[in-house]
Amino acid sequence: MAKLELHPDRLFPADDKIRGIARELYSTVKHLPIISPHGHTDPSWFATNANFTNPTDLLLVPDHYILRMLYSQGIRLEQLGIAPTGEENKIDPREAWRLLAGNYHLFRGTPSRIWLDWVFAEIFGLDARLSADTADLYYNRISEAIATDAFRPRALFDRFGIEVIATTEGPLDNLEHHRTIRQADWNGRVITAYRPDAVVDPEFEGFSDNLAKFSDLTGEDCSSWRGYLAAHRKRRAFFAEMGATSSDHGHPTAVTADLRASEAENLFERVAAGSCSANDAELFRAQMLTEMAKMSLDDGLVMQIHPGSFRNHNRPLFRRFGRDKGADIPMRAEYVHALRPLLSRFGNEPNLSIIVFTLDESTYARELAPLAGHYPALKLGPAWWFHDSPEGMRRYRRMTTETAGFYNTVGFNDDTRAFMSIPARHDLARRIDCGFLAELVAEHRLEHYEAADLARMLSYDFAKKAYRL
Amino acid sequence: MAKLELHPDRLFPADDKIRGIARELYSTVKHLPIISPHGHTDPSWFATNANFTNPTDLLLVPDHYILRMLYSQGIRLEQLGIAPTGEENKIDPREAWRLLAGNYHLFRGTPSRIWLDWVFAEIFGLDARLSADTADLYYNRISEAIATDAFRPRALFDRFGIEVIATTEGPLDNLEHHRTIRQADWNGRVITAYRPDAVVDPEFEGFSDNLAKFSDLTGEDCSSWRGYLAAHRKRRAFFAEMGATSSDHGHPTAVTADLRASEAENLFERVAAGSCSANDAELFRAQMLTEMAKMSLDDGLVMQIHPGSFRNHNRPLFRRFGRDKGADIPMRAEYVHALRPLLSRFGNEPNLSIIVFTLDESTYARELAPLAGHYPALKLGPAWWFHDSPEGMRRYRRMTTETAGFYNTVGFNDDTRAFMSIPARHDLARRIDCGFLAELVAEHRLEHYEAADLARMLSYDFAKKAYRL
Amino acid sequence: MAKLELHPDRLFPADDKIRGIARELYSTVKHLPIISPHGHTDPSWFATNANFTNPTDLLLVPDHYILRMLYSQGIRLEQLGIAPTGEENKIDPREAWRLLAGNYHLFRGTPSRIWLDWVFAEIFGLDARLSADTADLYYNRISEAIATDAFRPRALFDRFGIEVIATTEGPLDNLEHHRTIRQADWNGRVITAYRPDAVVDPEFEGFSDNLAKFSDLTGEDCSSWRGYLAAHRKRRAFFAEMGATSSDHGHPTAVTADLRASEAENLFERVAAGSCSANDAELFRAQMLTEMAKMSLDDGLVMQIHPGSFRNHNRPLFRRFGRDKGADIPMRAEYVHALRPLLSRFGNEPNLSIIVFTLDESTYARELAPLAGHYPALKLGPAWWFHDSPEGMRRYRRMTTETAGFYNTVGFNDDTRAFMSIPARHDLARRIDCGFLAELVAEHRLEHYEAADLARMLSYDFAKKAYRL
Repeated sequence: MAKLELHPDRLFPADDKIRGIARELYSTVKHLPIISPHGHTDPSWFATNANFTNPTDLLLVPDHYILRMLYSQGIRLEQLGIAPTGEENKIDPREAWRLLAGNYHLFRGTPSRIWLDWVFAEIFGLDARLSADTADLYYNRISEAIATDAFRPRALFDRFGIEVIATTEGPLDNLEHHRTIRQADWNGRVITAYRPDAVVDPEFEGFSDNLAKFSDLTGEDCSSWRGYLAAHRKRRAFFAEMGATSSDHGHPTAVTADLRASEAENLFERVAAGSCSANDAELFRAQMLTEMAKMSLDDGLVMQIHPGSFRNHNRPLFRRFGRDKGADIPMRAEYVHALRPLLSRFGNEPNLSIIVFTLDESTYARELAPLAGHYPALKLGPAWWFHDSPEGMRRYRRMTTETAGFYNTVGFNDDTRAFMSIPARHDLARRIDCGFLAELVAEHRLEHYEAADLARMLSYDFAKKAYRL
Repeated sequence: MAKLELHPDRLFPADDKIRGIARELYSTVKHLPIISPHGHTDPSWFATNANFTNPTDLLLVPDHYILRMLYSQGIRLEQLGIAPTGEENKIDPREAWRLLAGNYHLFRGTPSRIWLDWVFAEIFGLDARLSADTADLYYNRISEAIATDAFRPRALFDRFGIEVIATTEGPLDNLEHHRTIRQADWNGRVITAYRPDAVVDPEFEGFSDNLAKFSDLTGEDCSSWRGYLAAHRKRRAFFAEMGATSSDHGHPTAVTADLRASEAENLFERVAAGSCSANDAELFRAQMLTEMAKMSLDDGLVMQIHPGSFRNHNRPLFRRFGRDKGADIPMRAEYVHALRPLLSRFGNEPNLSIIVFTLDESTYARELAPLAGHYPALKLGPAWWFHDSPEGMRRYRRMTTETAGFYNTVGFNDDTRAFMSIPARHDLARRIDCGFLAELVAEHRLEHYEAADLARMLSYDFAKKAYRL
Repeated sequence: MAKLELHPDRLFPADDKIRGIARELYSTVKHLPIISPHGHTDPSWFATNANFTNPTDLLLVPDHYILRMLYSQGIRLEQLGIAPTGEENKIDPREAWRLLAGNYHLFRGTPSRIWLDWVFAEIFGLDARLSADTADLYYNRISEAIATDAFRPRALFDRFGIEVIATTEGPLDNLEHHRTIRQADWNGRVITAYRPDAVVDPEFEGFSDNLAKFSDLTGEDCSSWRGYLAAHRKRRAFFAEMGATSSDHGHPTAVTADLRASEAENLFERVAAGSCSANDAELFRAQMLTEMAKMSLDDGLVMQIHPGSFRNHNRPLFRRFGRDKGADIPMRAEYVHALRPLLSRFGNEPNLSIIVFTLDESTYARELAPLAGHYPALKLGPAWWFHDSPEGMRRYRRMTTETAGFYNTVGFNDDTRAFMSIPARHDLARRIDCGFLAELVAEHRLEHYEAADLARMLSYDFAKKAYRL
């Protein structure tokens, strides 16, 4: 049985000079509280504070990174405890767990492996590596632990040192869990974020019904442009009451538009009538980014744009299992022309904050750093999704810093529903950032005191400030 | 005269910690047999086992990397012993060799230099650097050597430790050399691969004639869709008999299609009539990738897709000298939309194996690693062509591993017609991979025993498995 | 107050083995004269040799890198001493300087910081870091210095060790400053370069007027294609008399065309009539690149192509302040198809020299290195603009060298109007190149004597040769 040990110097560059500096920098940020301004944890966890059920449902089933890797090697989703839509799972979670354990070597060299090992070692105190041999040992140990009070969501939240965490909800959500949390006898700060894709994207499943619900919920007539916009304003205000400091927009592209009022109204009429073309749908999403920016100027919500994922790329898999099964694939992205309408309208507003993300790293140095290094309203989100990884973060820093500087970036966010891995992800990001800063110091591109300053800002201050937390 | 010495630590990262680990890993894979599953050596070499003629024809004339670099600095192809089509070479091969020698400094920093130095030192025992001063020394030494039995193709094949090598032939090839090799009193395993571009690409020179020959050769009526497909099946079966375990497809783009049977038939009719448009040609190539995948499901051939080269970019040069003179230039590539029809149809088949290559590194992290890290049928080919180089391989590993893992890659292939350089190329790949693994170990992202495991797989097992050898 | 010290090992890789080699290589090129073949200094400085006015006008106002960074963080251009078009600057330059000083932390990790620190320490002998606390100290010290004779432009030129510097002028410029310089009792070599965008780009502000002036200036009828071309030839000849050895072309894209004479003439008629479409404008610029190449074959001017910048991206800012305020943003670029018409026509001419630049690094390894590594007429310009930085240069070398070699590149050029920073920029480039070469030596990919050779060529010889200086 191979030993599982987290080396104190892990993820620091190998060079002794650099590593020494990185170690020092890291020691000053290691214990800073976690700011998690963008993610997908389930607020019901913190509202009900119920125990998690079993290791498979906790760690395997909700983690798309794990599903996709196992699936890529010929393991069927059914074997992992994922039932096709409308069917029942017939798999013993222990069996699914054994599949993960027996194939854990597949994750060598991936961030999943780093995050999971951290969870195993730090949260569950395991000291042998996960493998076919240790599958049951793991299953038993984790099962026992999560049945205890110390492993309930709120206790873990506190233990993880989370200062604030944001979840993501749609405008049709009543935010009852958030209300419960706010009224609970617990100090954990769990806030929501306004993600209106379901009522903004005409191609979203059930868009027409969603508009109808949007009317019901807000008392506005969402079949009219004026009413529709008013409904957004109302829900944004409600979300802000429930702690939201940001909105989030997951569009296929970063395209924005700045139509005249009458054009926008006509477009909305076609959209609301359910008869709009693909071009209209794209234009409407584009226009809505500008509308949202306008509302942000009034209500102060920070705007996040997350474009560039081809959702549900695997057609047969989507038909059988539905969304979010690890089959979203990044596409080539373009920002320079796409963002121009929005930026020409609002990009010079110093009180507006738009945070842009990308899945296309070729835009870091070419488009995003130059844009964020010029427009007052624009900031650069951290390395995202597939790039939320040691090499991905290093490329991000190397390709953005020289043009955007550090101060036009917004720190780290974990963007995950894998609650257990949140501290692991922040720890990884802090280590990689300290390593990058250490390299700059070792090459005399930065003084040590400046690196120390920046280490703290990248780990804590920037996120807090950028998201107005 | 400068000394030529191959340093035992060459190509390992400089850091002592990493280098030590790399050296150790490499020592365990250095002598593993060579699996060469994709390349362009000439099967007649191994069939006839004749001596190579002279250093220039052996090392300079067939190597596009060398031709292009010398040409880029104003040396005419005629000076290098390449005659325009229809004309005779009037250059003394020794004179051409002297030109290479006198300009050998141009190759500083290129992989050609690394490969050639290996050939000079390891195969021919030369210990002074190639230069104007040593041109004749080299020419004489190499000439003498290749006149001996020990330097005949089969002897070199054995000396190089090649376990299996694949050549590439078109469906119209009768594979007589492969037949000869199989019947020879020699154990070397030389297999073919099915590369049907000449009868699949309507824009290929002589496409109509090729279809006619395809009919003659197979006894099928290749002017009908049904007959045309049957002809492919027959030739694939014959290629498989001659050892083929893969097909190979060198299309301008990665576009695939999944037409209904009647549409495909109509399209083929236009294509066979010789009257198809550029769009039709692209669509036909696209459809044929899906047809080939379907045949692969039946006959088990592994499918390779090599898209993205703008062939014969230099018009005047092409007119005078024809194909393959170093004027093929990579183009921007797209895979996410392009492969979707094929992947939606067959991407979930665990028994199908499609290996995709790219000349556009911006697709590594953005498109190919996410696709290969999800679809069971898809694997990622190694760094290809211009990227078959130390920095190219490092970028490949850094940009693909975190999302696709190592296990969705297929090891190394040399893709060359420069027979002498094959061991040099595998040696380079093994060194770079060991260096990369060593870095992961030094940063505690991987355990040493895991890296040792992977070093072997990247050097040997993965290629054998992926190509079903 | 933090100390300002330039560490002798700055910008060398941290590894001791590599650093030792880099240090040695650098010591041999550190004092080589500066060849500055492409830049935007103002020839009037050297013609009048007047003292610079104040620190703000010298170092802040003309530096777009500084403006854009401060602007991105909410500082208005007015506060920096930039008045809207037609208005007067009301800001005390000392106040603007204090703003820079108080926000100097924003430049951490950027090349601006490296260049500025060099200027502060080496030119002005400052030994405390710029900050709010030292703002006035800096302002006073610099003010005093630049009032002295030793800090007049010609004295600095000589002190900087500049062997030759090229400025950039349009065809309508009478080059009086260059004439003055040539007649002056001073040996500094200041030459011009022919940048005809204003009379080549139909979308340039005032294009029609420019054509009229072009006629007046040359005595040719620039409303006819023949006269227009003759006018170019005349001005090129005049520029060459004033020292020019190159032309420079700043087009939105790299598209070239090779129209038949009659087509070109018809196109010009539409263009000259002021009625051309956006497509016509693009086609005309494209055709003119080929026409310029043709003229270069006759008059020997080296041709530079600088494509890919979206000029004046920020519409409101452009309206208020005009061009060149840090709002130019790179766009995705394409060269393989774009350059083909030109290269098919003239790419095989060994006496033609076309130097191509890019703002899209994804084209380095994919397109530009393969093209420059093949076509005799094509060379690769250095890392440009936002990529003129330590990481940018490293990526450039890593992504171009293996395919294009070193010998198809042209050394460094500073491309700046920030005169003070010129030695800093060349020093940075030399350090980074020596670091890269040292890495190759440390990995035994290059011999030490070869690296020493190349260090000199990259620092001095290549630029001199490529630009025919």
